[in-house]
Amino acid sequence: MRAPLTVLLACLALPAAADSLRDHALTLFEPLPDRIDTVAGHPVTPEQVDLGRMLYFDPRISDTGQFACATCHNPATGGDSNRDTSIGHAWQTGPQNAPTIFNATLNSARFWQGWAEDLPATGDSLLQVGAERTGTPERMVATLASMPAYVDAFTRTFPDDADPVTFANATTALESFIATLVTPAPFDAWLKGEDSALSPQAREGLALFIDKGCATCHQGVNLGGNSYHPFRVIRTPGTEGQPESIQCFSVVEDDGTQYLFRAGTLRNITLTSPYFSEGSVRSLPLAIQIMGRTQLGTDLSDEETDRIAAFLESLEGTPPPITLPVLPRESALTPAPLPPLREE
Amino acid sequence: MRAPLTVLLACLALPAAADSLRDHALTLFEPLPDRIDTVAGHPVTPEQVDLGRMLYFDPRISDTGQFACATCHNPATGGDSNRDTSIGHAWQTGPQNAPTIFNATLNSARFWQGWAEDLPATGDSLLQVGAERTGTPERMVATLASMPAYVDAFTRTFPDDADPVTFANATTALESFIATLVTPAPFDAWLKGEDSALSPQAREGLALFIDKGCATCHQGVNLGGNSYHPFRVIRTPGTEGQPESIQCFSVVEDDGTQYLFRAGTLRNITLTSPYFSEGSVRSLPLAIQIMGRTQLGTDLSDEETDRIAAFLESLEGTPPPITLPVLPRESALTPAPLPPLREE
Repeated sequence: MRAPLTVLLACLALPAAADSLRDHALTLFEPLPDRIDTVAGHPVTPEQVDLGRMLYFDPRISDTGQFACATCHNPATGGDSNRDTSIGHAWQTGPQNAPTIFNATLNSARFWQGWAEDLPATGDSLLQVGAERTGTPERMVATLASMPAYVDAFTRTFPDDADPVTFANATTALESFIATLVTPAPFDAWLKGEDSALSPQAREGLALFIDKGCATCHQGVNLGGNSYHPFRVIRTPGTEGQPESIQCFSVVEDDGTQYLFRAGTLRNITLTSPYFSEGSVRSLPLAIQIMGRTQLGTDLSDEETDRIAAFLESLEGTPPPITLPVLPRESALTPAPLPPLREE
Repeated sequence: MRAPLTVLLACLALPAAADSLRDHALTLFEPLPDRIDTVAGHPVTPEQVDLGRMLYFDPRISDTGQFACATCHNPATGGDSNRDTSIGHAWQTGPQNAPTIFNATLNSARFWQGWAEDLPATGDSLLQVGAERTGTPERMVATLASMPAYVDAFTRTFPDDADPVTFANATTALESFIATLVTPAPFDAWLKGEDSALSPQAREGLALFIDKGCATCHQGVNLGGNSYHPFRVIRTPGTEGQPESIQCFSVVEDDGTQYLFRAGTLRNITLTSPYFSEGSVRSLPLAIQIMGRTQLGTDLSDEETDRIAAFLESLEGTPPPITLPVLPRESALTPAPLPPLREE
């Protein structure tokens, strides 16, 4: 049930109306949690976070020693790369835009096309397949186990494990570090009652965002990231470059799954240009208008677009300070990086 | 004038002798400064350091948005890459190993072959030539000037400049950030009088290091980084991939310059494998023995090698904590990254 736009807009000047917009918003969205205490069924421990931070920034887990998680999901630039599709092993490009790592723990939909059941499967895939080509679990474990300071960190983090340096434990630690990357934003403050956190224009944009139907797909704590929808805006997406074995899109039960795409989170959208699964659009106003036209059948005016953009601005959050880890030094047993052979 | 090894070794047990080793060491080496207040003739300001840190971690100054300074000179892994030669634009590899950025301000010799007169020229070169291919100064300035938060940062940092967003100012800021990357080590504490900072084995290694002649080239504050010497250990180095225009090796006046190489700093050598200008050797003991044989005409025994390695351990320092910057967001004017075309 939606309140008509005119009613919502007319009410913005009145305190009671602001509350009414907030009440409506709270049925669709929720503020970010202050912190995430459990992820993928395990508690987040400080040791896991520290170890996960090391792994996240360590390029030596890739075949060539060239790519860390942070290369394409860069916390310095909104948690993503600034490219349409990322450049990976052998100067290949992946088929789809790298999504932001910020608040990713709160997405229930993994990958643009639902390739993974859950977070551990997401990590498994990212560490092995496609353009990322960060190497096999065996090679990664051999690399980590060759460095005494990593062995110490795994032992400290997983004290009950006889053999703590495992791919599964590395994934667990990464999940815990990533769970810390939440970015509270003015919109969260406003949802929690701080009226001045949203400008009048942003509140008008929020009302439009709800009224026009954007919130049908972009809802929940991440304003997206939790559902799949048909999307053929730029061109019909192909399946080139996607591993055969995971084209079943197992989390999506619908017959039309082959061209369903995740509605991405709109948190930090001002930082995560270019947009859409292929990263084909760099302008946020243009992206808003394309979405209106193709997904909602609505031609948004420039004024409406500006207001919605002002609302989306309020989703730009503050990431936690991240101290670059000082990574363990290599030993004589550490596998040398592979030569940069091209794959033609 | 060198004290005979046997005398030095015999004296290690006595306090007076330890002082004598230290006195000798202080004629060859010096401890790192607590901090560097001026670099390349300009004072280091906190604003420059902050801006330089942003630039150092920003991959958007490269053509493809793929490479930041930190990609190959990674402060998380000893200030260098872990590769023999780094992978750069179009999956090319450079001809020579990426040296560590730690303490680099204190090197008087720039590049492996003295390509640059001074620090600004070093930055100019790195930002433009070779495999790094980070783009033209014009493109870099256009990128930075397109982002309001960068313009603010430049204006704050260079308040007297009418047009502060310049390539020269970016270089100045980078120099100031890099000047903060000094890594005080146990050897520095020992040089300053803390006897327990070096183990007996490390002190024996130091005596050997001096006595065998290693300190002839690896001396000064960085134990290297300030002179050029002939080096044909692995193979006669070629000049492939080196820009014609700077093959004059202008800082080296000798006729034999074409095959002179910088004696690299030994600070953090335990973190900066692989070794030598081509990164051909990953084992530190092997590198020590190769140097003994080819540069000093000495076959070092395993015991001598171990002692020297123990001394080199004491050069592993502590970098300052580095907080990953939150980089300015792009605007509609920011140039899009170039497509990842290969150069065949």
